[in-house]
Amino acid sequence: MASHVSRLLLFVCLCALSTNGKAPEPQLSLDSLNPLVLETEYAVRGELLTRAAELETQLQAGTPPLPFAKTVRCNIGNPQALGQKPLSFPRQVLSLVMNPPVLSVMEASKVYPADVFARARKYIASVPSAGAYSESQGVTEVRKEVASFIEHRDQVRAASADVVDVDNIFLTDGASAAVKLAMQLMIRGKDDAILVPVPQYPIYSAVSTLYNGSMASYFLSEENSWSATIAELRRALREARDAGKNVRGLVIINPGNPTGQSMPAEDVKSLVRFCVSERLVLMADEVYQENIYGPAPPFFSARRAAIETGEKVQLMSFHSISKGFSGECGLRGGYLELYGISADVRAQLVKLASLTLCSNVPGQFATGLMVNPPSKGEASYPLYVEEKDAILSSLERRAGIIQKALNDLPGVTCNKAEGAMYLFPQLHLPEAAVAAANKAGKTPDTYYCLKLLEATGLVVVPGSGFGQKNGTYHFRTTFLPPEKDLDGVIILLGDFHRKFMEQYGGLSSKKVEL
Amino acid sequence: MASHVSRLLLFVCLCALSTNGKAPEPQLSLDSLNPLVLETEYAVRGELLTRAAELETQLQAGTPPLPFAKTVRCNIGNPQALGQKPLSFPRQVLSLVMNPPVLSVMEASKVYPADVFARARKYIASVPSAGAYSESQGVTEVRKEVASFIEHRDQVRAASADVVDVDNIFLTDGASAAVKLAMQLMIRGKDDAILVPVPQYPIYSAVSTLYNGSMASYFLSEENSWSATIAELRRALREARDAGKNVRGLVIINPGNPTGQSMPAEDVKSLVRFCVSERLVLMADEVYQENIYGPAPPFFSARRAAIETGEKVQLMSFHSISKGFSGECGLRGGYLELYGISADVRAQLVKLASLTLCSNVPGQFATGLMVNPPSKGEASYPLYVEEKDAILSSLERRAGIIQKALNDLPGVTCNKAEGAMYLFPQLHLPEAAVAAANKAGKTPDTYYCLKLLEATGLVVVPGSGFGQKNGTYHFRTTFLPPEKDLDGVIILLGDFHRKFMEQYGGLSSKKVEL
Repeated sequence: MASHVSRLLLFVCLCALSTNGKAPEPQLSLDSLNPLVLETEYAVRGELLTRAAELETQLQAGTPPLPFAKTVRCNIGNPQALGQKPLSFPRQVLSLVMNPPVLSVMEASKVYPADVFARARKYIASVPSAGAYSESQGVTEVRKEVASFIEHRDQVRAASADVVDVDNIFLTDGASAAVKLAMQLMIRGKDDAILVPVPQYPIYSAVSTLYNGSMASYFLSEENSWSATIAELRRALREARDAGKNVRGLVIINPGNPTGQSMPAEDVKSLVRFCVSERLVLMADEVYQENIYGPAPPFFSARRAAIETGEKVQLMSFHSISKGFSGECGLRGGYLELYGISADVRAQLVKLASLTLCSNVPGQFATGLMVNPPSKGEASYPLYVEEKDAILSSLERRAGIIQKALNDLPGVTCNKAEGAMYLFPQLHLPEAAVAAANKAGKTPDTYYCLKLLEATGLVVVPGSGFGQKNGTYHFRTTFLPPEKDLDGVIILLGDFHRKFMEQYGGLSSKKVEL
Repeated sequence: MASHVSRLLLFVCLCALSTNGKAPEPQLSLDSLNPLVLETEYAVRGELLTRAAELETQLQAGTPPLPFAKTVRCNIGNPQALGQKPLSFPRQVLSLVMNPPVLSVMEASKVYPADVFARARKYIASVPSAGAYSESQGVTEVRKEVASFIEHRDQVRAASADVVDVDNIFLTDGASAAVKLAMQLMIRGKDDAILVPVPQYPIYSAVSTLYNGSMASYFLSEENSWSATIAELRRALREARDAGKNVRGLVIINPGNPTGQSMPAEDVKSLVRFCVSERLVLMADEVYQENIYGPAPPFFSARRAAIETGEKVQLMSFHSISKGFSGECGLRGGYLELYGISADVRAQLVKLASLTLCSNVPGQFATGLMVNPPSKGEASYPLYVEEKDAILSSLERRAGIIQKALNDLPGVTCNKAEGAMYLFPQLHLPEAAVAAANKAGKTPDTYYCLKLLEATGLVVVPGSGFGQKNGTYHFRTTFLPPEKDLDGVIILLGDFHRKFMEQYGGLSSKKVEL
């Protein structure tokens, strides 16, 4: 009997332990995650954005009070979040593609110009439905439009060996998804390295960490409009190889992000030759190819450089609907083109893309609409040109205004933006500010950006998120706030900056020149 | 002089070698890819689909002639590719969201019911633009709709601890993207294993290979409506642990893919208890939750099982707009909900999601429209119900017709589809057919499916792509061809099958019973 009771008690205790006792450590905790995920850093949505979100919640709650009424997110190239209107033609077409039964009704009432209906009909006929999975690489009709775009842009001779094979085009959910695919295909482990510019857009460092690869840094020359030199590339390559790395690829960002330079044709050709002589896959991030301002070198693609040099480079190039004057970040569209890469390797990339079945089909059509806009003579052409010119000329003006304002600040120097959507000013911080940052456990640029955010609501990203030469401090800001708000932004920034410099004794020193 | 000439010759030779001579092995070749990519298999877009694409090209060219006029893709659940019409309400709303300036024009002319305009206005107001990046986890307004949907579905008591936190919801480009995120977060290397049902939808095996993890198989019981038993789970878990694996999670697919079973509530609860007692993260693929037919057990979510058992399980559940009666595969929308997972782990998942910035925003709205359809009393409600009922009842009829036809074939047995969109018949192949397959270097089921494709144009997927017990052979077919085409499909399949069996001496044997 005693034994029976004690067994019963034991049973009760075990039950209590399993349901009410101290729970065992859960399977998934911060200590037991994939460590590569933990290591991965992605500054454009990092600490500054987290803090901005906290402050936004505080603004909504109304308490505790803040010295500004709203945040202004200059942390990321997200033009429509800051008031840029979408182009009319692509959105009109997409509205019809989304609901084909309404097409004939709207055509009868002439709500849109005639070419809108024609394009919508073409896309509607190209797939069973926008709601059906497409082929893994994307809708063939759109890939043909991309192929024509590339051929026209790069002045490819008809029927030459350089015409674009639609099988080499992959439509993707934006360029970031394409970069992930490309890197996952190539990286085998820690001994594989990719040469990445510093400063860089952090998708490259993030993805090389996440896929357990290594990043080899080559420094852009701030003194020379953030250009890449072959000498520096050789140095970086030698250093990586000396460290036992198998350097597999070279990333170029042209026009530059965060640095804004536009590469002259001869530089792109030199990089192609360098890749061939060093057996590197060239990964060309060309998402800002339409964003070139004023007297800067015109955009010259890596593919065109390959053709004109006759070099048999292995090339992957990326484009996106998120940038340019399209700014359709939320629609997630873009493409990856392979060049000089064999069909058996391509088949592996198709398999990799097929794991998520296909990129979103409306985004694919949006990509077609970007690369194949209304032509001269078509009904939508005049408005298209007007909208395009207004966006690009405004971007150029805004870049100039902010760049000038930055250079007027004590202890700030800023290169001209030849392209893209960013300025990357250098902060010549007083020693006391560096010391205060160190004390707070922050890098000095992060410290500056956090203080800026907390004082003004302006969200910019510290240079350390992109990489910078040791001992230099920068931040990246988009020049996307609308022109009507620009004076306000500049005053906020200037007032904060002067106070910050004064606080740390930086106003007494002479303005530092690069 | 001689030395000068020889140096010149050397220079010419070197030039010839570098530009015209035998080129060095390119950096990126099949031998030098990420071996995990090479290993990854994804049958639903695998060999059968490649062959189907070749035959389609052949059909277009018209030569050499084929015994069929078109292929019928039953390889993947892609309803709109086989003629299913999108629901009207979501597409009407999306057409307005895509082009807000047209909203007032269309409202004035009453092109759509009033509730369409109201919903479109709500979504338009919820973001700066559909063309702006959203938060990494998705538009808050849509996440609130998802939260309400889950609470209503699972009968969560208001203000209880079980209400859904919108911060635990991630809007994704379909469920596959969500599965990739979840697996990448968890898998640290080969010693980490995930328990996956066999047969399974191959995203789980593919992704566990790609992320360098291991898959531990538990077999579903074909004899018992493809159910999962705790005894079999224990066996599989023990086997994996004995092999030194750290088993981190359990995947359940409910309703089953490719197997079509709907899990009774008690089974789901048992699985939750099993996960808690064995410290496993439960990954619940519930994308077919709206596809339950006839007298099958109603859908019972893993989250509801967690609530009703009171067990503190760590749960990730997946849903999608691609299935159900929505069938919006091409729009790429879905969600992942975390339950019982700590905020610091969640923050890492947010970071991982942020690498591609956000899922496509129209797909996010499509997700909102799925979980928050027109309500009773709203103008669009009657049509919505009519369309929904027509699709679901047709799916049920088609499932029944094909299942019966399959069971009528000699050497074929097929369980009822209680849910989802697939049938997974077992082929009891004659020895001679198995021998012929072996000789051709194919698995017997692949051999059968290739022959079926080449004879009829029907594209189905061999059971080996999903996993099956050794020595058994199956294929998966969707039941998505439209009812008007169904008789034709059944005749094609039956004629082929009888000829195949006859050819290999399978008609003389008695019908094999399970």
